[in-house]
Amino acid sequence: MLINNTEFTALWEGESTSSPDSLKSISVIDQRVLPHQFKIIELTSSIAIIDAISYMLVRGAPLIGVAAAYAVYFALKESIAVGDNEYFEEAVQGILLTRPTAVNLKWAVDLVLGRINLQTSNPDKLYAAISTARKIREFEINNCKRIGEIGVSIIKDIYDRTQKPVNVLTHCNAGWLATVDYGTALSPVYKAAELGIPIHVWVGETRPRNQGASLTAWELLQNKIPHTLIADNAGGLLMMQNKVDLVIVGADRVASNADTANKIGTYLKSLAAYEHSVPFYVAMPSSSYDSSIATGESIDIEDRSQDEIKYIQGLDKGMIRKVLICPEETSAYNPGFDITPAKFITGFITEQGIYSPSTISELEPIDLEQYF
Amino acid sequence: MLINNTEFTALWEGESTSSPDSLKSISVIDQRVLPHQFKIIELTSSIAIIDAISYMLVRGAPLIGVAAAYAVYFALKESIAVGDNEYFEEAVQGILLTRPTAVNLKWAVDLVLGRINLQTSNPDKLYAAISTARKIREFEINNCKRIGEIGVSIIKDIYDRTQKPVNVLTHCNAGWLATVDYGTALSPVYKAAELGIPIHVWVGETRPRNQGASLTAWELLQNKIPHTLIADNAGGLLMMQNKVDLVIVGADRVASNADTANKIGTYLKSLAAYEHSVPFYVAMPSSSYDSSIATGESIDIEDRSQDEIKYIQGLDKGMIRKVLICPEETSAYNPGFDITPAKFITGFITEQGIYSPSTISELEPIDLEQYF
Repeated sequence: MLINNTEFTALWEGESTSSPDSLKSISVIDQRVLPHQFKIIELTSSIAIIDAISYMLVRGAPLIGVAAAYAVYFALKESIAVGDNEYFEEAVQGILLTRPTAVNLKWAVDLVLGRINLQTSNPDKLYAAISTARKIREFEINNCKRIGEIGVSIIKDIYDRTQKPVNVLTHCNAGWLATVDYGTALSPVYKAAELGIPIHVWVGETRPRNQGASLTAWELLQNKIPHTLIADNAGGLLMMQNKVDLVIVGADRVASNADTANKIGTYLKSLAAYEHSVPFYVAMPSSSYDSSIATGESIDIEDRSQDEIKYIQGLDKGMIRKVLICPEETSAYNPGFDITPAKFITGFITEQGIYSPSTISELEPIDLEQYF
Repeated sequence: MLINNTEFTALWEGESTSSPDSLKSISVIDQRVLPHQFKIIELTSSIAIIDAISYMLVRGAPLIGVAAAYAVYFALKESIAVGDNEYFEEAVQGILLTRPTAVNLKWAVDLVLGRINLQTSNPDKLYAAISTARKIREFEINNCKRIGEIGVSIIKDIYDRTQKPVNVLTHCNAGWLATVDYGTALSPVYKAAELGIPIHVWVGETRPRNQGASLTAWELLQNKIPHTLIADNAGGLLMMQNKVDLVIVGADRVASNADTANKIGTYLKSLAAYEHSVPFYVAMPSSSYDSSIATGESIDIEDRSQDEIKYIQGLDKGMIRKVLICPEETSAYNPGFDITPAKFITGFITEQGIYSPSTISELEPIDLEQYF
């Protein structure tokens, strides 16, 4: 997608030769300082990628899956270099522990490990790791593109009926910054704009980390999509006043029964959408579906630092600063995600098609072979 | 209530003699700079009070009613001094236009005007104005005290049943800073603490202006009430996880049918409370009930500046700063209030007793005579 009219993805490789140990780095956009600074960071080790995921330089379920796959490659390369297999196992544990809620991370790590384990020689293992990471990246880009092509039909149907700009409400950032390209929730929006369907996005700011205000608004601005920022609190009133035609959000993990973990605050929006008969869609690659978990109740919800509530980051006179918004002595509680029960979800927009909560279990198992 | 162990109210008079034109000022706490600075501001004219309400040095439905009553007194005194009756009428219009949603403001202004109009001489008019403003202040303090005494029964019932600290979730600031003393939503909380009932308050930060983070947390801290700050987005998850026993919020205007205007975001909390059978109470003096308005749909919802969304105020290295949280070019929409439909409200805690949405119309008309 576009930044200052130049095509970018959210994660790309540095230079390499055909030798499987030749990749020296991956590059990412530092999502902690957007929209105020556009900073590219080169990550050259498994530890650097682990830190980038932990500290949210990169975030978004599909993107952290891809980043984690590359982290496994670097961990393997490093362990071969030092001749210490325990190093590799510890690094993999470190990768898995960075963020507990999004299933894509575990899915991607398991996939790379599975491919590595099929090989015996170190060069073959390394080749398996790098090629699988590349395939996962390519796979997620294609998934997101397909999500746009499939999901745009929902937007088009509304436009055909109303002949008015379609108002989409989204939460957090499930755009191309959260994936590698196109996005999940925003992919149908970009596709609609491409097709000339008039569209407008209500961007919930998404406290505490304000990914809506800082990332979604910025993405939409760069790609010239009309949008308006709102406090998360305003979503209910907007739906009551018929100012929202459609809600589309992303997902960090969808349980077998279709209960969905997504950024904290998603659940409240789903309640309002249900009350006002506003269609509520979850857009996600099938890698976010976790058939091993029965219901949302069993999804591990990440507790994050209270300082994300107490301090807010922004720009003042050209400097990025953090300001304290409450008494220093006050404690805060900061669950990063919530669970939207299946009953409040109209459907799931996936690369395989649109599913309802009752048919989501029919998703085909992921077949990466086509990419090999 | 307490600030640094000293008793304060949110609005008090400067010195005066028995002469009705002798009151030179009222004093208020500047609520724009709390919790970082404690600043008392002396207001010496109708314009100063109008500005204080407009710029939210004072806020909260009952408090702006009291401030507006004093503003009418100062406007009358000024118009007598300049011998210009039109001045008075324009000033009264200015007062009425400061904030449209809270009915207490109009109620208080009308009450003072009614008393003034019963008199013929200027000294008598002035006396009517000052004495009515004083009565309204006294009335609202007593109302809030009663709301605490009456509402504590709900908290006590929960504690008697569970024998565990009672978890109250509140939104915005409906504490003593929003009234004159005691508060509305927080008055039963303070009373419970006084009676030794273990209590804990979940404080929603209340974007965009963060009155929860900056005012409610500060009030509770000063009065030693256990509390935890949360992002507004977390309210749904907390109720799903049975971490909330009771929701109590304030009100800016309650329509005849019990639909309730309150700070933006209240409606989303009511939906979650309803879904999880958490009792949802509105605490308010009867001066917030507006029998002249049939339903919530007719309540005027104040549109506030988009800069309240785009910029967040806080403390950085001892300085109060405003930081930009989104791209400068992004527009924001900032409705200040939303409407909670009557069906999601368990009851109203008023100075006259606890009412259900179906009995709220039985509130007795307000009788200020007892205060004269």
